[in-house]
Amino acid sequence: MKHLSFYYNLYYIGYQNLDNYIMCCITHTSLRNGRPSARMVLLKAYGREGFTIFTNYESRKGQEMIENPKASLLFYWDVFNRQVRIEGRVEKVSEAESVEYFGCRPRGSQLSARISQQSRPVESRDTLVERYKQEERTFPKDVPKPHFWGGFRIIPDVFEFWCGQTDRLHDRIRFFRPESSDRVDGKVSKMGEEGWAYERLQP
Amino acid sequence: MKHLSFYYNLYYIGYQNLDNYIMCCITHTSLRNGRPSARMVLLKAYGREGFTIFTNYESRKGQEMIENPKASLLFYWDVFNRQVRIEGRVEKVSEAESVEYFGCRPRGSQLSARISQQSRPVESRDTLVERYKQEERTFPKDVPKPHFWGGFRIIPDVFEFWCGQTDRLHDRIRFFRPESSDRVDGKVSKMGEEGWAYERLQP
Repeated sequence: MKHLSFYYNLYYIGYQNLDNYIMCCITHTSLRNGRPSARMVLLKAYGREGFTIFTNYESRKGQEMIENPKASLLFYWDVFNRQVRIEGRVEKVSEAESVEYFGCRPRGSQLSARISQQSRPVESRDTLVERYKQEERTFPKDVPKPHFWGGFRIIPDVFEFWCGQTDRLHDRIRFFRPESSDRVDGKVSKMGEEGWAYERLQP
Repeated sequence: MKHLSFYYNLYYIGYQNLDNYIMCCITHTSLRNGRPSARMVLLKAYGREGFTIFTNYESRKGQEMIENPKASLLFYWDVFNRQVRIEGRVEKVSEAESVEYFGCRPRGSQLSARISQQSRPVESRDTLVERYKQEERTFPKDVPKPHFWGGFRIIPDVFEFWCGQTDRLHDRIRFFRPESSDRVDGKVSKMGEEGWAYERLQP
């Protein structure tokens, strides 16, 4: 119970082999207008250090995560009636890490990443295709990573593991990093391992 | 192209028969700490008036949507490589509508909704089960809707229809309600039907 890694394995890593890739919903918010925004993203890496995605830093999600470096991730497995909710702070990954990952991507994706002013309107698909062809000619071999493209890492401070049950009495176990020891009373909330506390939430 | 309803049908209604129910991700944000939060919810109704869900108004999502009445919804169909992103303002549905819907729910769900102080920690699952049994005895027949439970409607002002394509040149068509006619130049963004404008976004 008190090991975050126990739940983490059960919900997340245990299921990853079902797919060749993991899609999850990432959410962020503009502080200017309080509008939340959500979309599916491809999760490229995860581990003790956090959850890593790559994007255009000048896209809407890029700009909003730089402005308000907080995000949440949602994993959901319909077939198991389970979800994992994650909240945390956002950091850019190193330029070296972004360059390395960009280098592994398919050539088509590299070219598209270069020519797309992500999230901005464009006249037509033809305009994009024309720019793509141009870029293909400009870089007949290796395609360099553009300066505006790179990774973000979400460093979690909350995990909620949700498992649907009959009669709506769902199980919800929440792990969090307590700000002070007062927050953990030992009865409703308990200390777990490695600085994480946990508690059961009402469904 | 200029009919929102064309895309709406293509992406959304056309696929709903795949499932008996529609789950979508709903996202909102606390203005106090700027933290976005996402979870799956069951969509109970949709139509021209908006998208309706039901919840405990005192839960985290209930409180946050009352405090900051903006939300986003995400529908994603892995198998079709398509997603629909929706943003809008949030309103409570009428008490009569909430009472009517509560009355249609299974007895077990009704009892659980009554006894759960949703999103708050609890000592153990046994505590919940004990309260549930007590409530069963209190209401041997009809279960009344508790005052803290009801619906929210998200009234959309942005729809984005996303369709994954090869080489990362995804199609993204965004419908929005222009604040002024200046926003719609007729070239990159165009007026559609019924007060909606639309544009193609770069992927």
